[in-house]
Amino acid sequence: MSKDKVHIFDTTLRDGEQVPGCKLDTEQKLIIAERLDLLGVDVIEAGFPISSPGDFNSVHEISKLVKNASVCGLTRAVKKDIEAAAEALKMAKRPRIHTGIGTSDSHIKYKFNSNKEAIIERAVSAVKYAKTFVEDIEFYAEDAGRTDNEFLARVCEAVIKAGATVLNIPDTTGYCLPEEYGAKIKYLKENVTGIDKAILSCHCHNDLGLATANSIAGVINGARQIECTINGIGERAGNTSLEEVVMILRQHPTLNLDTNINSKLLYDTSQMVSQKMGVYVQPNKAIVGANAFAHSSGIHQDGVIKNRETYEIIDPADVGVTESSIVLTARSGRAALAYRAKNVGYELTKTQLDQVYEEFLSFADKKKEIMNEDIHDIIVASGISIEITV
Amino acid sequence: MSKDKVHIFDTTLRDGEQVPGCKLDTEQKLIIAERLDLLGVDVIEAGFPISSPGDFNSVHEISKLVKNASVCGLTRAVKKDIEAAAEALKMAKRPRIHTGIGTSDSHIKYKFNSNKEAIIERAVSAVKYAKTFVEDIEFYAEDAGRTDNEFLARVCEAVIKAGATVLNIPDTTGYCLPEEYGAKIKYLKENVTGIDKAILSCHCHNDLGLATANSIAGVINGARQIECTINGIGERAGNTSLEEVVMILRQHPTLNLDTNINSKLLYDTSQMVSQKMGVYVQPNKAIVGANAFAHSSGIHQDGVIKNRETYEIIDPADVGVTESSIVLTARSGRAALAYRAKNVGYELTKTQLDQVYEEFLSFADKKKEIMNEDIHDIIVASGISIEITV
Repeated sequence: MSKDKVHIFDTTLRDGEQVPGCKLDTEQKLIIAERLDLLGVDVIEAGFPISSPGDFNSVHEISKLVKNASVCGLTRAVKKDIEAAAEALKMAKRPRIHTGIGTSDSHIKYKFNSNKEAIIERAVSAVKYAKTFVEDIEFYAEDAGRTDNEFLARVCEAVIKAGATVLNIPDTTGYCLPEEYGAKIKYLKENVTGIDKAILSCHCHNDLGLATANSIAGVINGARQIECTINGIGERAGNTSLEEVVMILRQHPTLNLDTNINSKLLYDTSQMVSQKMGVYVQPNKAIVGANAFAHSSGIHQDGVIKNRETYEIIDPADVGVTESSIVLTARSGRAALAYRAKNVGYELTKTQLDQVYEEFLSFADKKKEIMNEDIHDIIVASGISIEITV
Repeated sequence: MSKDKVHIFDTTLRDGEQVPGCKLDTEQKLIIAERLDLLGVDVIEAGFPISSPGDFNSVHEISKLVKNASVCGLTRAVKKDIEAAAEALKMAKRPRIHTGIGTSDSHIKYKFNSNKEAIIERAVSAVKYAKTFVEDIEFYAEDAGRTDNEFLARVCEAVIKAGATVLNIPDTTGYCLPEEYGAKIKYLKENVTGIDKAILSCHCHNDLGLATANSIAGVINGARQIECTINGIGERAGNTSLEEVVMILRQHPTLNLDTNINSKLLYDTSQMVSQKMGVYVQPNKAIVGANAFAHSSGIHQDGVIKNRETYEIIDPADVGVTESSIVLTARSGRAALAYRAKNVGYELTKTQLDQVYEEFLSFADKKKEIMNEDIHDIIVASGISIEITV
């Protein structure tokens, strides 16, 4: 059975770029956009054209450059925003306007000082106006995570009638639990008239560390687009990590869902975005962190050396990492020491290994990590007689 | 109704310390252990005593120091490991031995070259032997995430009979989806005879970015202990983040679950662990990242300035962060500029704001972030006539 396709909507250059201190210039954005296109994302959200002349120009230039992906510009449900986006996108092969408005009680009351009926009217007008410029219109119901499902369904129904092709259901504040977010998508799938004419999209934030799980709950329950960023960067605790959702779908074939992403480019893309944005990726970041495939405890190393799958669920090569590593620390066992010693040319007998291991532990208790050059010193200090064999 | 308590088992000093390159000496471990005790964790896993003389000594010293939490030492299902742990823990007020063995087909076959019956025998012997030293015995079924539920239930039943007080169900490779992990805990809760005599514990890894969601699925389905680390550090992509699971339970009162953690100490504890271990926390880390409460986009800033709850689900003070911040970038709107200008002493009229905003955008398109000192320059450059009022 062929797998259902989940569209990947990359917002590294829009929601991702809202990270304090990581502003990119147009040239840097073009390099990243080209890379995202090569990676195989379906949509590149290139910016928020009305927000500044620089951002307008970036969207304009990215529209000219991108060959395969749709290029999308963000707007509020405001005429001048939509006009600016349409103008910035006019050279795009596949332009998409992303417009919307807050739908939760908190947003309606505090942000817009408005009421539900007026919000629906503004939503419909925005979609209709955007539709006069381009065919592909995505509508976001901001703070959908805290919007009651019945009203959210009414909004969705109205904007589909007005021509929206994609419905973005953002958990703007990152508050939802996976079960709750999944149930919201299911409710819309089952209760919105005309839902088959539009794609439901998950846009989750990571304030409680649940963005990835919420997005996966969304697609399990019928959404077919995930909005995400490289390395999960974005405002506050960031957005859903592209690399995580892509690899979850790939490693869980029973979900019967997949994306167009060429996973072998994930690691390099992560490095590129991190460097250009000046936003460090922590070593324990899933999939793309420096340690994501590094084993240091003795129990794990022993398992990996015997059979990789004991502790590894992803072949590092599948995400563009050259190899998993056996790191030597005071937590490593004899198997790891023998393995690494062999790599630098020493074939130790069992008795030799016992002797060298004692020496190794006293070295390792003082030093964070034992490198190849230390292995030579340890072997000399252990007093055994052995020659390098390779 | 009083909330059910979820025990927090902190393994920063054991599984967390397995991060390549972050070895701590005993003195550093003592400082962290004291802090964890103050934070209110229920169990401190202090190390793996058999692994090296340094680690043995750390567990011994931590046992003497800790006042409130249980102190736990890791072992394999091996006599000499258990003896070393018992010896290292002998000064602890509340000692716990953590022993176990791999139970998945992959572990039984490749790691132990053994069979299911023999694995159960080894598990039972280890628990019984550990029980001769201390009362509180936690058993781990390594790679439980990939162990079939029926066999896992048999193992759990056998070790409860042998005296285990806590059953650790690790998703060792970080492969499970939340629904699957939750269902596993539910299965054990419903099918293991004597399960009420033991606490089920979630130990999840973050290889696919799902450790937090899996742990929450576990406690929703009946587990009452979560094993986690500060900042989610640990081998490969790390462990469940303590700060994330604690704040999810606190912010979702309908789950009717809570921990003993004093959340106001979370941020400082995160900083301390990051500095002592030399492992950087990425700015977009949930709860404790530098940007976790920083707003930079115009739409969000406008909302936060009008009413904090529009975009904030956690009061930063509740996790020990002094305040959320309004960061000025090219994505910021007039509301944020007026707010920050007022903070440095300029009360702008609407017309003045329009003029200054134009100037601001051309500055901001060139600079990553606009600081307070830039605001003065921008106001001068805009040509409006205004005096500082505070």
